[in-house]
Amino acid sequence: MGGKQYLLTPGPTPVPPQVLAALAEPILHHRSPDFTPVYESCLTRLREVFRTTQEVLLFAASGTGAFESAVQNLVVRGEPHLVVSAGNFGERWATLTRAYGADVDHLRYAWGETPDPDDVRARLRERDAKAVWLVHSETSTGVVADIEALAAVAKEAGALVVVDGVSSLGAVPCETDAWGLDVVVSGSQKALMTPPGLGMCAVSQAAYAGVGDTPRFYFDWERTRKAQSTLDAAFTPPVSLVAGLDVALGLLLDEGLDAVFERHVRLGRAARAGAKAMGLELFSPDEDRSAVVTAIRAPDGIDAGAVVKGLRDRHGITIAGGQGDLKGKIFRLGHIGFFDVFDITTALAAVELVLASLGADIERGVAVTAALEAYEHSSSAAA
Amino acid sequence: MGGKQYLLTPGPTPVPPQVLAALAEPILHHRSPDFTPVYESCLTRLREVFRTTQEVLLFAASGTGAFESAVQNLVVRGEPHLVVSAGNFGERWATLTRAYGADVDHLRYAWGETPDPDDVRARLRERDAKAVWLVHSETSTGVVADIEALAAVAKEAGALVVVDGVSSLGAVPCETDAWGLDVVVSGSQKALMTPPGLGMCAVSQAAYAGVGDTPRFYFDWERTRKAQSTLDAAFTPPVSLVAGLDVALGLLLDEGLDAVFERHVRLGRAARAGAKAMGLELFSPDEDRSAVVTAIRAPDGIDAGAVVKGLRDRHGITIAGGQGDLKGKIFRLGHIGFFDVFDITTALAAVELVLASLGADIERGVAVTAALEAYEHSSSAAA
Repeated sequence: MGGKQYLLTPGPTPVPPQVLAALAEPILHHRSPDFTPVYESCLTRLREVFRTTQEVLLFAASGTGAFESAVQNLVVRGEPHLVVSAGNFGERWATLTRAYGADVDHLRYAWGETPDPDDVRARLRERDAKAVWLVHSETSTGVVADIEALAAVAKEAGALVVVDGVSSLGAVPCETDAWGLDVVVSGSQKALMTPPGLGMCAVSQAAYAGVGDTPRFYFDWERTRKAQSTLDAAFTPPVSLVAGLDVALGLLLDEGLDAVFERHVRLGRAARAGAKAMGLELFSPDEDRSAVVTAIRAPDGIDAGAVVKGLRDRHGITIAGGQGDLKGKIFRLGHIGFFDVFDITTALAAVELVLASLGADIERGVAVTAALEAYEHSSSAAA
Repeated sequence: MGGKQYLLTPGPTPVPPQVLAALAEPILHHRSPDFTPVYESCLTRLREVFRTTQEVLLFAASGTGAFESAVQNLVVRGEPHLVVSAGNFGERWATLTRAYGADVDHLRYAWGETPDPDDVRARLRERDAKAVWLVHSETSTGVVADIEALAAVAKEAGALVVVDGVSSLGAVPCETDAWGLDVVVSGSQKALMTPPGLGMCAVSQAAYAGVGDTPRFYFDWERTRKAQSTLDAAFTPPVSLVAGLDVALGLLLDEGLDAVFERHVRLGRAARAGAKAMGLELFSPDEDRSAVVTAIRAPDGIDAGAVVKGLRDRHGITIAGGQGDLKGKIFRLGHIGFFDVFDITTALAAVELVLASLGADIERGVAVTAALEAYEHSSSAAA
């Protein structure tokens, strides 16, 4: 189809036109005086968004690559680690830490559950861990964990805290320094409103002190930290993506991080209100922290894959289906980054049309209004 | 300065406007039917440019990252490997293979020398090697090695052949299959005329058979091969860069690889002829294989860094200085990728101006003409 296209997935996410324009600028040499100010601005803004005074290490890699940097630097074969999972990405980090020989205690919740700090405390009483590996926003389920509370428990037990902030950073509060998070990993392609290809990693002094001797080169923290400290890069950086990220971070900081977080809370409320008004059952928790992605159960007898396909083929709208065991059972609306309420109403209106055409028993004509009201009501509530 | 800017370094290299335009297109989801044909086209074209029937693995990473994939997959602690180096990048691969515990026999030439197949044969007679690690185009010196001959010697001894083709692939012939190269690593930001951020790796069946159990995840060949075989990606790919690379590869294949190689040979001849006409001494070998970057010695008493700075500050032209011990002694003109002869004459004219202003004793008014003649003469010679 040749019509308008809408990207409403939880990553990659839509990129603002100013960022796309920056990507189309002629290439700058990474060691030229033209690029250095862009690089410096980008690294400074990253620290602001991560809310840390530490250097945020920037890698040409996906979020998983940046996460692997944490594993390569911190995991030494045989050392005990606690991995907390409640969905696809948590499971990936368990696999990844095990691939490097970590002796993994796996606190494994069913997909969609919310990790409980008391469970983490109990595990750490039974067995020490060098680090606790946490997922902030589990993109596969819509659950946003209470990282502040989980981190506090880990710190209490003397463990390092490593956080997957790939889909959370810049969408919901993530106070790297104030919450004592030792490592926060993120990626360019979610709330940071930039194409995929950049992974980043904030690293505390305690985490540097915990670095082991597992072989590594490209993802070695110290090599990248040292290069960045003189505004150099250890390896040729993706200059176009860095220039785009700098523009995107500028947009985020101009709006103000707190305003950005509030917008995401309201978008989440709008998405959930609309889905419920239609008579759909939420898979995401119906609470304000769930401000990143809204997962919705397909009605009985309806394949969620058919909903995703219908939106795509008939309306040019890309949303996400379920992963793993949730395939066919849920569909997911992303609202991370460059989103406003009309993206939510567009998604809901199209979901309503497609579900109706699939013969689902849903309430017609109420979702969009419910979403707008939830969005506006949130606004006055916050004032 | 606000004037025109010229990027004439050996990487990152200038990117054609059609590629920049592709980078500014709205983001496509990597699993959407809109992206799949772009991805398939890009992977198919990569195989054509690598001249291989094997899958070319694509990573969100710099060239060094893709090279590290070869190390992580092939190097097992304690196994013997032969690393051949004659410059900055060869030295890097010696460091990288050692970082993973390889028992490295280092055939180490002075920077600027050309590796000799007889030396490789002699080393392999003394000691077996699981793999021989070679640099095709040593960007730090301008030397392009005779990879076909070096690889033949390695195959004769039963070793795998790993080639750093980062600055050579798409500029000079690199016959992956015909020459029996087991691994060829490259990057997007050189002759492939795309911004930095994509690393790639062609892998032979013999190389897959030699894969060891060193811990890895992101750069695991099998994980990426398996995903690509169904046109999926193991991790969110940098969709914008992939779309750009697809356009760039299309330009390369439309021109025809043999025509592209011939253009590079002529560009190299032009650069060398111009430099010699001015009375400058070449650091790059004065032979047709040196078609990637031309390294030139600064005249006695002149700091090569001042030449680089003069071109940049006074004329908006970015060229490269020397690396390592060659810092201050040489400057380097890149002509990889989106270059024609007028880029060479621009560089030579500006070098002439800057050297004259620095008081160098050079011949004035002849370099541009000599370059154009060498370029044209090459043309008739090739006809």
